[in-house]
Amino acid sequence: MEQLEKLEMLYEGKAKKVYGTQNVDQVIVEYKDDATAFNGEKKGTIETKGIVNNQMSAIIFEMLTTMGIENHFVKLLSEREMLVKSVKILPVEVIIRNIAAGSMAKRLGIEEGHVLKSTVLEFCYKNDELGDPLINEYHIEALGFATKEEIESIKAMTFQINEILKEFFLTKDLKLVDFKLEFGLYKGMVILADEVSPDTCRLWDVHTNEKLDKDRFRRDLGNVKEAYEEILRRLK
Amino acid sequence: MEQLEKLEMLYEGKAKKVYGTQNVDQVIVEYKDDATAFNGEKKGTIETKGIVNNQMSAIIFEMLTTMGIENHFVKLLSEREMLVKSVKILPVEVIIRNIAAGSMAKRLGIEEGHVLKSTVLEFCYKNDELGDPLINEYHIEALGFATKEEIESIKAMTFQINEILKEFFLTKDLKLVDFKLEFGLYKGMVILADEVSPDTCRLWDVHTNEKLDKDRFRRDLGNVKEAYEEILRRLK
Ligand SMILES: Nc1ncnc2c1ncn2[C@@H]1O[C@H](COP(=O)(O)OP(=O)(O)O)[C@@H](O)[C@H]1O
Ligand SMILES: Nc1ncnc2c1ncn2[C@@H]1O[C@H](COP(=O)(O)OP(=O)(O)O)[C@@H](O)[C@H]1O
Ligand SMILES: [Mg+2]
Ligand SMILES: [Mg+2]
Repeated sequence: MEQLEKLEMLYEGKAKKVYGTQNVDQVIVEYKDDATAFNGEKKGTIETKGIVNNQMSAIIFEMLTTMGIENHFVKLLSEREMLVKSVKILPVEVIIRNIAAGSMAKRLGIEEGHVLKSTVLEFCYKNDELGDPLINEYHIEALGFATKEEIESIKAMTFQINEILKEFFLTKDLKLVDFKLEFGLYKGMVILADEVSPDTCRLWDVHTNEKLDKDRFRRDLGNVKEAYEEILRRLK
Repeated sequence: MEQLEKLEMLYEGKAKKVYGTQNVDQVIVEYKDDATAFNGEKKGTIETKGIVNNQMSAIIFEMLTTMGIENHFVKLLSEREMLVKSVKILPVEVIIRNIAAGSMAKRLGIEEGHVLKSTVLEFCYKNDELGDPLINEYHIEALGFATKEEIESIKAMTFQINEILKEFFLTKDLKLVDFKLEFGLYKGMVILADEVSPDTCRLWDVHTNEKLDKDRFRRDLGNVKEAYEEILRRLK
């Protein structure tokens, strides 16, 4: 068996640290309890968040693997660490919206909770300084963020993932309102990377519409830690 | 010949008034000198603007008609008035960008003047209260602003119009940096409506890059009236 050792930290983001390993094709992701919102304006800590997000991401990635969705997950290493394929993250965030909420509801003057007639996919330019602005496929092509073929494959994978996750969360009495994905290039192929967690998904209880995600932190709704732990409890 | 009489004012916008006629299929558009910018925050008057925009729009619409692009123009009535087909304006603004400038350059951190690798088409939700936010085709469909077929025909027409206008303006020593179009439904068909003027196009002198459009008003560059008149002079 290959030996695994955490080498130097390659990158520290807002929610995770990424470390090199002896295998140049793999990195270790360590999930932190740090929480930020509104493009870093609001900062805080959500105790055990890193543990929840690591384990939830592992559960989702494993499930997506069985459904044929190529992703970066290799294996869980510890409470807060997973081994993943080292990818070149494409500078676009991909958002799916099944129900209007958050920035989309605000920007377009729609009531939060409005069930959309058809699924909305959005691309944002992953750039903290610019506040991750909304872009479209023409911007992506004109600015060279990804090729037409990469975009097509990202869109197809994202809609597939939405169908899989919507159904999966429903079995846990959760509505998948919206979520954000990041994709990366691995040996020339576009694969799903980053995380799938209450930081990156809006999840509402199917009976009460109670928010069980990062909106509890963003909007000071209380019981933030409890919501994250409730999600993990339901998924396990 | 049909008799033409201006009936009641149906709508007053920021730059034009629309009047009914005896013919329910036709309305009269009257171009005003009123100028607004930054979603109505900045207000002013550009003397003779209404005259320039009416006559320039007429020239462009007539040219587009000869090129097979269906549009609302019927005929010029006076210095400031044209007769047009009465359409149901779709609530989307369609923007083409050949060179990065204005809001796109700012939002995406690109230098104004950067020549885009490929043409960028943007849709905005035409809604003054919301500040005409950027949207994409999924929003348009999910919110029922237009059908998939209407969107496809708008995109095809818009790219065609860009090719025609780019070439046309070049013969007038003008670079077509970007422009905004509005489309409407007329007897079930999508046709080009509204105006094509220095209010809705960024036009730079091909030799000096001098701005000859509404940016002179937006940015207090001086010689605003002169720029509008220079454009009309070159087109005539
Ligand atoms: N498999 C991977 N390989 C390399 N980098 C990754 C991988 N998965 C995620 N990343 C990147 O790790 C960085 C740290 O994550 P995070 O703390 O969420 O960053 P951010 O502050 O950009 O949201 C991000 O840039 C993310 O895109
Ligand atoms: N052929 C047409 N039939 C009906 N309405 C039109 C037509 N062409 C343009 N309009 C509309 O006339 C209104 C007045 O124009 P304008 O002053 O430019 O308005 P705005 O303030 O919305 O920019 C706008 O709503 C525009 O969409
Ligand atoms: Mg992140
Ligand atoms: Mg207008």
